[in-house]
Amino acid sequence: MNGEQPFRITDSALLLDLGFLSVTERSIESADGATFKRFVIEHPGAVAVVPIVGDNVVLVRQYRAAIRDHILEIPAGKLDAPGEDLEEAARRELREETGFSAGTLLRLTDLMTAVGFCDEKITIFLADDVVAGDRSPIGPEEHDAEVLEMPLQQAVELVESGEIADAKTAVGLLIASRIRAAS
Amino acid sequence: MNGEQPFRITDSALLLDLGFLSVTERSIESADGATFKRFVIEHPGAVAVVPIVGDNVVLVRQYRAAIRDHILEIPAGKLDAPGEDLEEAARRELREETGFSAGTLLRLTDLMTAVGFCDEKITIFLADDVVAGDRSPIGPEEHDAEVLEMPLQQAVELVESGEIADAKTAVGLLIASRIRAAS
Repeated sequence: MNGEQPFRITDSALLLDLGFLSVTERSIESADGATFKRFVIEHPGAVAVVPIVGDNVVLVRQYRAAIRDHILEIPAGKLDAPGEDLEEAARRELREETGFSAGTLLRLTDLMTAVGFCDEKITIFLADDVVAGDRSPIGPEEHDAEVLEMPLQQAVELVESGEIADAKTAVGLLIASRIRAAS
Repeated sequence: MNGEQPFRITDSALLLDLGFLSVTERSIESADGATFKRFVIEHPGAVAVVPIVGDNVVLVRQYRAAIRDHILEIPAGKLDAPGEDLEEAARRELREETGFSAGTLLRLTDLMTAVGFCDEKITIFLADDVVAGDRSPIGPEEHDAEVLEMPLQQAVELVESGEIADAKTAVGLLIASRIRAAS
């Protein structure tokens, strides 16, 4: 980010290969020659979309095994392959999960979700005036998922109250709301 | 979150114990009796603070091995033990990383950073009018870290432009800015 690089990764050992996730231990050398190690979860990257219909946003309430509960999210999914076209992936995930199709996509930000231990980057798009269609859910969680619309303003209030707790969703909604307020 | 629970975790196998992180494979049973498995990274939870001095926010630019780069963040850290007092942990992390001490803490939200594969929850606090003091950094990254102040409004613009990309930081700054605008 800035010019100086006081740390240099000298080695990376694969500890566990889970398919789309890898667990590695990276060796790092400081400018003074000292070395230390850090565990890193390697992730292929993901995309997410804030889908807007008039004054409403389209959200998905879906079960997540990691938190043993359902949670309200914007449509999202991991990349099928590293280097996959991000806009194509975003359109695919939006269509699969919600049935909606996007016209123009505006790239909002590349969010780093958990920099302390993971390299996951989620590119978040804004899709204005998406068009309804048929879902094609994949996997038991998406088949069970509920698609719902609510006013964007109400969704932002749920972020402020803590009821919308998913990180990519909170950031996507808050930036989308600021853009609409400014325009 | 809602009443119905169509999924039930029936088993969890520990694949790798990394100390503060564990990699597990959870077995899940659907309401129709079908079963499937999901990898989950288990994390002890973390705290973060949006530290305000007048119209400024205090940020930390720190190296993160996971992304092989420096990144601008609000002060944060993982819990030393599950069940640790969250406010105490937040005050400790703020003081260690920046030297600033917090008075009253306002709990903004409990952010789930990566629900697709990880149970990490970061409780984000707002600390109004923090007071400067001496840092006590721990580990090579914190020793190298740069503490800086900038207007909260400018930091929010960096979130909108994508230059502030860390998830907890983006959410903390955006909610703090909305609270100040409303008051």
